[in-house]
Amino acid sequence: MIKILILSTSLFLASTSIIAQSDDAVMVKNIVDEVMTNSTAYSNLRKICKEIGPRLSGSVNAKKAVEATAQMLREAGADKVYLQPCMVTHWERGAKESGYISISGEKIKLQLTALGNSEGSGKRGVAGDIVEVKSMQELNKLGNSVKGKIVFFNIKMNPTYIETFRAYGESGVGRRSGPSQAAKYGAVGVMVRSLASNIDEYPHTGALQYNDSFPKIPAVAISTKQSELISKSLAAGESVKGSFKTFSKMLPSVLSYNVIGEIIGSEVPDEIITIGGHLDSWDLAEGAHDDGTGCVQSIEVIRSIKALGLKPERTIRAVMFMNEENGGGGGDAYYDSAVSKKEKHILAIESDAGGFTPRNFGVDATPDDLNKLKSWSAIFSPYGIESFKEGFGGSDIENLGKLGTILIGYVPDSQRYFDIHHAATDVFENVSKRELDLGAANITGLIYLASKYGFSKQ
Amino acid sequence: MIKILILSTSLFLASTSIIAQSDDAVMVKNIVDEVMTNSTAYSNLRKICKEIGPRLSGSVNAKKAVEATAQMLREAGADKVYLQPCMVTHWERGAKESGYISISGEKIKLQLTALGNSEGSGKRGVAGDIVEVKSMQELNKLGNSVKGKIVFFNIKMNPTYIETFRAYGESGVGRRSGPSQAAKYGAVGVMVRSLASNIDEYPHTGALQYNDSFPKIPAVAISTKQSELISKSLAAGESVKGSFKTFSKMLPSVLSYNVIGEIIGSEVPDEIITIGGHLDSWDLAEGAHDDGTGCVQSIEVIRSIKALGLKPERTIRAVMFMNEENGGGGGDAYYDSAVSKKEKHILAIESDAGGFTPRNFGVDATPDDLNKLKSWSAIFSPYGIESFKEGFGGSDIENLGKLGTILIGYVPDSQRYFDIHHAATDVFENVSKRELDLGAANITGLIYLASKYGFSKQ
Repeated sequence: MIKILILSTSLFLASTSIIAQSDDAVMVKNIVDEVMTNSTAYSNLRKICKEIGPRLSGSVNAKKAVEATAQMLREAGADKVYLQPCMVTHWERGAKESGYISISGEKIKLQLTALGNSEGSGKRGVAGDIVEVKSMQELNKLGNSVKGKIVFFNIKMNPTYIETFRAYGESGVGRRSGPSQAAKYGAVGVMVRSLASNIDEYPHTGALQYNDSFPKIPAVAISTKQSELISKSLAAGESVKGSFKTFSKMLPSVLSYNVIGEIIGSEVPDEIITIGGHLDSWDLAEGAHDDGTGCVQSIEVIRSIKALGLKPERTIRAVMFMNEENGGGGGDAYYDSAVSKKEKHILAIESDAGGFTPRNFGVDATPDDLNKLKSWSAIFSPYGIESFKEGFGGSDIENLGKLGTILIGYVPDSQRYFDIHHAATDVFENVSKRELDLGAANITGLIYLASKYGFSKQ
Repeated sequence: MIKILILSTSLFLASTSIIAQSDDAVMVKNIVDEVMTNSTAYSNLRKICKEIGPRLSGSVNAKKAVEATAQMLREAGADKVYLQPCMVTHWERGAKESGYISISGEKIKLQLTALGNSEGSGKRGVAGDIVEVKSMQELNKLGNSVKGKIVFFNIKMNPTYIETFRAYGESGVGRRSGPSQAAKYGAVGVMVRSLASNIDEYPHTGALQYNDSFPKIPAVAISTKQSELISKSLAAGESVKGSFKTFSKMLPSVLSYNVIGEIIGSEVPDEIITIGGHLDSWDLAEGAHDDGTGCVQSIEVIRSIKALGLKPERTIRAVMFMNEENGGGGGDAYYDSAVSKKEKHILAIESDAGGFTPRNFGVDATPDDLNKLKSWSAIFSPYGIESFKEGFGGSDIENLGKLGTILIGYVPDSQRYFDIHHAATDVFENVSKRELDLGAANITGLIYLASKYGFSKQ
């Protein structure tokens, strides 16, 4: 009898849960339909890319982007739009870099770009024999024999990793810590193979991290095509010399802003759900996929919820973080403010993996919360989300993890990202409107459910 | 005791099945690694797109493509490469079409293209008031009142359909049967809104199907941008007139070829697995996604199996079908040959939905065979295949269904396809190497398993 009672109770619970799921599924479909029909994400992205363009932290364009996205958030109908001050890295490329290689005497102009945060060589430039290494171990083995030379980190992205971010992380060691490690052994300069999954003529920049114990030697990325050329020439026993001049420098940090638009929660306004992307971009292109798309998707969350007349129970905040690329000042300021105001952040989502077609939500949370999220999977599967699975939230929201906030990274398909990432080809034309909107639609649906149900531990 | 015996037997069976799965998973990973590392699909595609270009059935370029892909199959290591004769539609666009609209007196040059298989207007052209309809029902309601006018089918692709092929199928009625239906009511010409998911300046062609009972009136597709303009102008009460000249004509069918490369099965050579794409393309662009990608993926199946030194149990045939776009002569010839030779076709796969990132395999088979395929899902999920599910095989292999052949359509992500489909923008530059290769990798893995295990009913 008790068994029967339990059974019928659980059947009752199961059936109410199915009804709730079906209501939720209908609501998420409404959201998806609204976004796929009326989204302004693509036209907002066009403005950010074409009317503003590159938006390196501390630049005039970054300022313009702050103003422009604040206006977009107002137009989206946010209850409240404000700027959150933050100190940001101020690195400048300076005059255009140039360089050459000489392969057994034949001089070839390099397709190169100074690495972000690198110190320039100035007019004197650097020059020397090129020594190729394919790993940090190889460099360490060579040790002081690289003295006076240019170390060439030729670490290919592994094409067999289907998640291209994995290859990026693994091969990125040369760009990130290579320059200081080479300096430790007396190298005069560093060239790194661009962190790109394709073979082409475009160099890809990105931040290095100098180790203050060693000289800050100049460092550039060169195109994958020329990396192959140098490597083949060395393998064939030819002598390869290089030279380059860069004019970049690190300046004192400056004041900038995160741009925030909120919908105030109708029932539990002190519980905050953040959705964000980063507004700054590298200076070589328009920062379309990195990360204009994350910004305009976050704005679309606000617009679509307002357009549908929804009154979310909890507060929803769209945040355009500043300075993700080369400092993290925006993410830090957001976290500091949350701590000092004792804000209750129940969930933070970041879209900073490109505006490609949806694949997953990557979740950094307790097993219970992950299971709760997984129970919503069927609602999202018609829209290209295969699963909620363990994953990284995002570097701008990472700090919030210390407050127990559930962190979620929006994971679009990653096959095309590293063709254009940090290169001159990261432009508006390489974004698909439908892919962009479908991401925004899924994110908005997820935020709707999170706002409706909250998370129990909070 | 019996129970225990059954239990232990089924445990034994389950564990051998798990071991088989794990061997299979290792093998499929080897295949994926080989394709992602050494694929020639992208360089073959470059040749087809850039050295040959548009390949309309019956054209000189179609002939060149036959020779080029036969050579590619030889280079891929096929045991046997041959041409299969087929009669194909021979339609020619003739001189470049031109047209204008006049909106309340203002004359605007049309972005237009003659529809495939349409009869041209000749120098006299057609001219008349433009009458917009948004469905066939609307046209039928207007009936004879469209006499002497140009009917404008403005049937948008529904942006809320996440599978864009569904929207294409639904909205395609205007292009396919609109011209004859409008002719039935006395219209002098037809304009259709391009079947495109985006708003831009490029007209998209595609085949119409005349009904012999009515006059074959000229028909063009116009860009989505101008379709919006005409629609808005009419809604604002402006008078809109149109005129256009087309010079296309249908000529007698001509002899052409399917190109076939085979690996002869090592154990059961009379059981055939077909993988194909279509070699012909529309004349406006390079036929990159439609369907150069399907062709080079099929060739890559042969190359990667040979490169790995595999000896597939069953015969694998890569087929470049001719004449998919405007006649189906290649698919018909392949089927007729299979019947006359009493071939045993156990499985046919078609890749004709673009070379985008993998999503699914769409299966047209018995529930038992579908379940068998589904049991392999976990092997493919690391490579972007979410599921095996009911779906359409492909128009070139459709006939084989009559022989009981399992039909599978490779289903890549469909968000970008109808931005470029049948338009001048379907070019090599819009194909991602990794997306293309990942498709080839999954298809090859599936063919490997199908060849190893076969299908019981055969």
